[in-house]
Amino acid sequence: MERRSGSRLSREQRRAQLVELGMRLFSERSFDEVSVDRVAEEAGISRSLLFHYFPTKHDFQVAVARAATEELLASTEPDPALPPVERLRASLAAYIDYVSDRREAFLSLVRGASGGGAQLRAVVDRAHDEVARRILDGLGLTAAQTGPMLRVAIHGWIAFMEEAVVRWLLEEEEGSRETLLDVLEQVLVGALVAVYEEVPEGLRAPRSA
Amino acid sequence: MERRSGSRLSREQRRAQLVELGMRLFSERSFDEVSVDRVAEEAGISRSLLFHYFPTKHDFQVAVARAATEELLASTEPDPALPPVERLRASLAAYIDYVSDRREAFLSLVRGASGGGAQLRAVVDRAHDEVARRILDGLGLTAAQTGPMLRVAIHGWIAFMEEAVVRWLLEEEEGSRETLLDVLEQVLVGALVAVYEEVPEGLRAPRSA
Repeated sequence: MERRSGSRLSREQRRAQLVELGMRLFSERSFDEVSVDRVAEEAGISRSLLFHYFPTKHDFQVAVARAATEELLASTEPDPALPPVERLRASLAAYIDYVSDRREAFLSLVRGASGGGAQLRAVVDRAHDEVARRILDGLGLTAAQTGPMLRVAIHGWIAFMEEAVVRWLLEEEEGSRETLLDVLEQVLVGALVAVYEEVPEGLRAPRSA
Repeated sequence: MERRSGSRLSREQRRAQLVELGMRLFSERSFDEVSVDRVAEEAGISRSLLFHYFPTKHDFQVAVARAATEELLASTEPDPALPPVERLRASLAAYIDYVSDRREAFLSLVRGASGGGAQLRAVVDRAHDEVARRILDGLGLTAAQTGPMLRVAIHGWIAFMEEAVVRWLLEEEEGSRETLLDVLEQVLVGALVAVYEEVPEGLRAPRSA
């Protein structure tokens, strides 16, 4: 029952198609640089039909940001087959590579260049919460078992990671990717050690393995 | 030649007085919660006179944020009489105390609850750059001597500090202030060590001194 012709897509299909187009357009240019007319032109639809799916440009931006964040979370999903430190490093490497390939989109999202607002904030908060959950999971803890200072340290580190990667992109990736990975990894371990006053069990695998 | 009567203030004096009032009002309530009418009423002037000094509420917010940031930077000025590690810790303690006393203002500024925009972003960027300069200064380095990864690590740590303090305030300061200080201090040292692969000379003072 698959519909082959592109001329009559369902509302959901058309929305998904537009979001996908947005992810492609915004990977190379910031959100503010891409006009609504350009989006409509690339999609081969009228400006008014675009507004039918997304009443404002901001609605479109939020939908694209949400889809990109989901894709980023999927591409950095920790691999349970790896030991803890390697698992962390593999996810961090995937994170750096994903955002390097889509620098403009990442910079506009994180820097909130287009004014931000509560909906974009919610997209970013949800991604941060998922990253925090994964870190706790890696430490063998549930959110309920977590003390306030551990939450403080983990969310501090997520902010570190985001800002460090933004700066690294803005520096034209001048510093080495491996050094960036080392810094991110060591700062997370350091932040956890500062809270626990020892290396948490989940990260106690030998570094030189 | 000092003018005593409050009735006729110069434009600059009146602006400064309004900014000071804003800093007081926004320390307890977020920017979005305080109406322009409330500001005018507290200042004992008309709404239209307030708009004469600050054409939009956003202009007022930017002026208040700028003044608060300058005050924060002044209150956390490193004390050159202290050895490096104690100097860092004293500045961090002053930072935590300053923002604890003005939590709503700090949360609205950092979270950009009111939409943010380029002018607010510039206020925050200038504060971050000054903090980065102080850290480099503490390490005996000028900006010109700084490699890209050191900038990445320092700005990452500033983001860590801001987010950690925001979370700590949101957690109702449940975790101890001393633990927060330990975490901030150890993460900075850890980030610098990750870049240098050793403890930088400026921070090599014995921790137990």
